[in-house]
Amino acid sequence: MSEPDFTLEERAAVYRAIALRRDIRAEFLPDAVSHEVLLRLLGAAHQAPSVGLSQPWRFLVVRSLATRRAVHAAFMRANAEAAATYRAADEQRYRALRLAGILDAPVNLCITCDDAPLRGHGLGRQTMPETARYSTVCAIQNLWLAARAEGLGVGWVSILDPAELRTILSIPDRLTFIAYLCLGYVAEFPMLPDLERVGWESRSPLADVIDFEQYREQ
Amino acid sequence: MSEPDFTLEERAAVYRAIALRRDIRAEFLPDAVSHEVLLRLLGAAHQAPSVGLSQPWRFLVVRSLATRRAVHAAFMRANAEAAATYRAADEQRYRALRLAGILDAPVNLCITCDDAPLRGHGLGRQTMPETARYSTVCAIQNLWLAARAEGLGVGWVSILDPAELRTILSIPDRLTFIAYLCLGYVAEFPMLPDLERVGWESRSPLADVIDFEQYREQ
Repeated sequence: MSEPDFTLEERAAVYRAIALRRDIRAEFLPDAVSHEVLLRLLGAAHQAPSVGLSQPWRFLVVRSLATRRAVHAAFMRANAEAAATYRAADEQRYRALRLAGILDAPVNLCITCDDAPLRGHGLGRQTMPETARYSTVCAIQNLWLAARAEGLGVGWVSILDPAELRTILSIPDRLTFIAYLCLGYVAEFPMLPDLERVGWESRSPLADVIDFEQYREQ
Repeated sequence: MSEPDFTLEERAAVYRAIALRRDIRAEFLPDAVSHEVLLRLLGAAHQAPSVGLSQPWRFLVVRSLATRRAVHAAFMRANAEAAATYRAADEQRYRALRLAGILDAPVNLCITCDDAPLRGHGLGRQTMPETARYSTVCAIQNLWLAARAEGLGVGWVSILDPAELRTILSIPDRLTFIAYLCLGYVAEFPMLPDLERVGWESRSPLADVIDFEQYREQ
């Protein structure tokens, strides 16, 4: 017994979630995210592919305002340091960017990975141990797309010192910090990526990233 | 002007793609994958989130049988070495696994990442430079889900020596090898992950990977 094929409408829905997903920083609403919805999203993440079926990911749900304030302070420090590396006009442009919604989003998620999982019995990790981390990122993208279909926004905050975050959240030594996400309902999903809308960077044509049979010279 | 919300049917389709996606190794059909379908899948990948909108990924499409044979030989060597690390019964179980469809799948994809992309102007990579690679993995998961909705299977082969693959495919020095994928239509999508079906590993309960506010002791 096998599943019926995806209808054209179902296929279009998958492509729609992929096309309309955005990295949300400024549009979070304070509306509560129910436990039920949160578990659906984490359930989508947990269905990601994983090397050797090791499922090496771990999801820490943070709703505590005190914890989010500590993470936000860490973000502000890392962001000030990042801003100082730009010169003149670029620094002004950088400082004007809105890059995280840690305090606005009612739910934050810290995603970690066990780099040496017992599960999976090592299969597939001997030549490429980094695939445990990559599996964890696949889980994040599953969650991101499910969230978009549910009308929830996700923002990935990478302007954080991993060592500082490890201290704030008491991340166990055996786990590697992969991502810090902000999650919540949004006023609206912008049509353009933020960084394109404000002129920081524009999206590249698809043809620029595809090669056939061998790499083109650049 | 903003997009209408996802209907319940659209939402279900996204969850369905996530739930029914499989890592395909044995079920590939020789049916050709058209250029049009391939570009739709790569277009989905290219819509992934990327740190600083850097879009650091690069997709090499390999249809050449000679190239796939060379990669397959590299897989066979890495797989024999991996098998030899298991003992007794585990080695027998490992050797019985079907772990790659490099020659059966009509299309192979080598996914690489530029770890120091000019695009994005460094935004978000100063504290966590590994996010360029993670962005590339998000692109892979987009492609995987779009493929499932199109009725195409994807298999991720991580049992490969990255240095050997770099030589076979002449991967430029500036690019980091992230993943080698097999892609094609399939006879059927198994209901269970292969490794669960054959008893190598089973999927863990969702509750095991979620913590609230702080990490539980283990």
